[in-house]
Amino acid sequence: MFRALARASATLGPQVAGWARTMATRQLLVAPPEALLRPLFIPNRLLLGPGPSNLAPRVLVAGGQQMIGHMHKEMFQVGHVGGGSGCPECPPQGGEGRSVGSDLRALGPQIMDDIKQGIQYVFQTKNPLTLAISGSGHCALEAALFNILEPGDPFLVGVNGIWGQRAADIGERIGARVHPMIKDPGNHYTLQELEEALAQHKPVLLFLTQGESSSGVLQPLDGYGELCHRYNCLLLVDSVASLCGTPIYMDQQGIDVLYSGSQKVLNSPPGTSLISFSDKAKNKIYTRKTKPVSFYLDMKWLANIWGCDGKPRIYHHTTPVVSLYSLRESLALIAEQGLENSWRQHREVTAYLHGRLQGLGLQLFVKDPALRLPTVTSVAVPAGYDWRDIVNYVMDHFDIEITGGLGPSMGKVLRIGLLGCNATRENVDRVIQALQEALQRCSRNKL
Amino acid sequence: MFRALARASATLGPQVAGWARTMATRQLLVAPPEALLRPLFIPNRLLLGPGPSNLAPRVLVAGGQQMIGHMHKEMFQVGHVGGGSGCPECPPQGGEGRSVGSDLRALGPQIMDDIKQGIQYVFQTKNPLTLAISGSGHCALEAALFNILEPGDPFLVGVNGIWGQRAADIGERIGARVHPMIKDPGNHYTLQELEEALAQHKPVLLFLTQGESSSGVLQPLDGYGELCHRYNCLLLVDSVASLCGTPIYMDQQGIDVLYSGSQKVLNSPPGTSLISFSDKAKNKIYTRKTKPVSFYLDMKWLANIWGCDGKPRIYHHTTPVVSLYSLRESLALIAEQGLENSWRQHREVTAYLHGRLQGLGLQLFVKDPALRLPTVTSVAVPAGYDWRDIVNYVMDHFDIEITGGLGPSMGKVLRIGLLGCNATRENVDRVIQALQEALQRCSRNKL
Repeated sequence: MFRALARASATLGPQVAGWARTMATRQLLVAPPEALLRPLFIPNRLLLGPGPSNLAPRVLVAGGQQMIGHMHKEMFQVGHVGGGSGCPECPPQGGEGRSVGSDLRALGPQIMDDIKQGIQYVFQTKNPLTLAISGSGHCALEAALFNILEPGDPFLVGVNGIWGQRAADIGERIGARVHPMIKDPGNHYTLQELEEALAQHKPVLLFLTQGESSSGVLQPLDGYGELCHRYNCLLLVDSVASLCGTPIYMDQQGIDVLYSGSQKVLNSPPGTSLISFSDKAKNKIYTRKTKPVSFYLDMKWLANIWGCDGKPRIYHHTTPVVSLYSLRESLALIAEQGLENSWRQHREVTAYLHGRLQGLGLQLFVKDPALRLPTVTSVAVPAGYDWRDIVNYVMDHFDIEITGGLGPSMGKVLRIGLLGCNATRENVDRVIQALQEALQRCSRNKL
Repeated sequence: MFRALARASATLGPQVAGWARTMATRQLLVAPPEALLRPLFIPNRLLLGPGPSNLAPRVLVAGGQQMIGHMHKEMFQVGHVGGGSGCPECPPQGGEGRSVGSDLRALGPQIMDDIKQGIQYVFQTKNPLTLAISGSGHCALEAALFNILEPGDPFLVGVNGIWGQRAADIGERIGARVHPMIKDPGNHYTLQELEEALAQHKPVLLFLTQGESSSGVLQPLDGYGELCHRYNCLLLVDSVASLCGTPIYMDQQGIDVLYSGSQKVLNSPPGTSLISFSDKAKNKIYTRKTKPVSFYLDMKWLANIWGCDGKPRIYHHTTPVVSLYSLRESLALIAEQGLENSWRQHREVTAYLHGRLQGLGLQLFVKDPALRLPTVTSVAVPAGYDWRDIVNYVMDHFDIEITGGLGPSMGKVLRIGLLGCNATRENVDRVIQALQEALQRCSRNKL
């Protein structure tokens, strides 16, 4: 086809001639890179680190689908642009982006609306302001902090691992008065400790991580929302590494802002994240004195394109349509399995892993069994070993990913994740076999 | 498997028993949404709006691949974590994230490194600080402004459509002194106008849009970088809707920051974007007095995980691995086709479209042929028609997307995009046939 066009170009008139002159004035100084001429090859690996996890088969299929427009009727409940009711050939319209009720439901999924409902289910919330962020978990954390905090706002942060460090860092960037509560990795926060800090600092927001994936700690949440509200503080919880692997009840536990990622138990690719705001949190956003620093993450705009504000949807940014297909399928899988079954699966398979690890003579890093995450397990690096040797051995000889520590837990732990469809006894047996062999081969005492 | 686990749970010890008690204290109050039980169905549409465009077949295949870790050896040139050279069973290591030279090249693509080279090619730049952003084009715009501007910095913005409006908005959010140069959609900026504004406002940064997709204007760029540098101003250019469809030479044209999107001529899904910084721009970033407001978009961190700073790579955020497969394949397609061939294809097919549109009696919105974008064409809405009727008719009867205006051009234009693999004469013929029929059926004069 292209050659035919080239032949025809002489007849295409002054516009093409003008363009051709512009092009002739410069030359390409950077050549096509040879590296891009190699074929793409993606190996098959069992991802038993703290995430990303392997994609569920149905999610894989979704990721291979063709594009549609980010505002097409398959994305949300409106079939057409505008309300062009005057065209005799056009079907009745839903108006300028308003919901058109149940008649369009028969046409198939509305991906963004389905995702909102799916997030409400996995978060156990009825919050209308519930949506997916077009970015990773860190982006969702920024969406939370950028929208809730204003310069000068006191912000209390539980820093018992890398996620609290990151929250404190972002808080400082936007001018909040950050009060970090620093603990060694492996620890959690009690109600009593928090009450003292709330009384002392009078924060507008408290950050806690439910699943501290860098240390393997499960932060209890019962009573924490109530406590915060007694001190006029909002509660923000990171559930990236824990969601769908352990119970969370956003509304019943009084959590004001909750976010999570797509690439952990949900078995979707990284690149989207989940977020929801209580009415209290929404009120803080809608009564801000200053605009959030980010337009991309401005919740008033996002609330609109996600249909959370009851107004006609207006173009904000181009959402990651194919990633949303995947996220929708992930949430559909959990809806079919049932949250309680997913929680039970993770609890039981991870307990089985813990038993097998102890059978190898390894020590779990988190001492109290009630505080161990049912998704990501941290194991103390055994004496006489370099954690890197073990991780590399398991990857090289078994094509299995496990990882070392992260941030404050670096060098202290090995981490094994059993996330979503990867949480099976068969996978536990595979990783235990790999670890057993690594422990035999990688001892530095032999050197 | 799950039932077997349930039967076995009685034997799993105190950890599971403790979890079970926690779970028993609360009940699910939000049921699994019925909407998620419907199967996902994605229709086949020809996307001839201003983007997103259809995915190229090879990009589709890439999107259906399984996950690997975001720091695995297929992502960049390092095979292993750390430098665990002591393990007798492990191959020689590349050290803590450093490049290991050509021996690993034989193993296959290094996706992030390939993407960097691909961006350098399509931008025609040798800038080391070149990478992909984990978000849409708006996210890349924020990455540019957050990193270059500090509070109080004067910022000159060409506002001749929606993208300049957005840049001005973001500049204000982060406390820059924004000087918008407002023009009606369809206009561009001359060197003389800019020189006056540069002399008057002494900005540190000028924003221009090469492909103003909301109006269909192609902003000339020759001489603009040189002019800016004479006034100690950096030049930031948005090429989201124009990249690979019309020439741009970042280094030769003295562009200091250039960004683009994945979902236009590159025929990838939305969700990643491309960005590069000149040494001048990099210097402004590395001599900032304040941290950028965003951690997610902090260029010093991103430079590190993209291997642009020569230091060992440190975890920053989980990159959108599968979207990067797609982006890598998009860039490989352009490398194989050749930039100049891609430019020529868009120029010639769009010229053919312009001729056919004029043959229907329609008026192109941009009067000067030299200022018409070779990717997105704007057509004046013909008298006696509502643009919505035409857009809806073409979608309903032909499964083809064309769109109306956006922001300042809303209501004034229809927009037709011929982007990447969609830029063929066959597609022009299809959309012209659809438009012809729509014009016959949708006239409001008949009513």
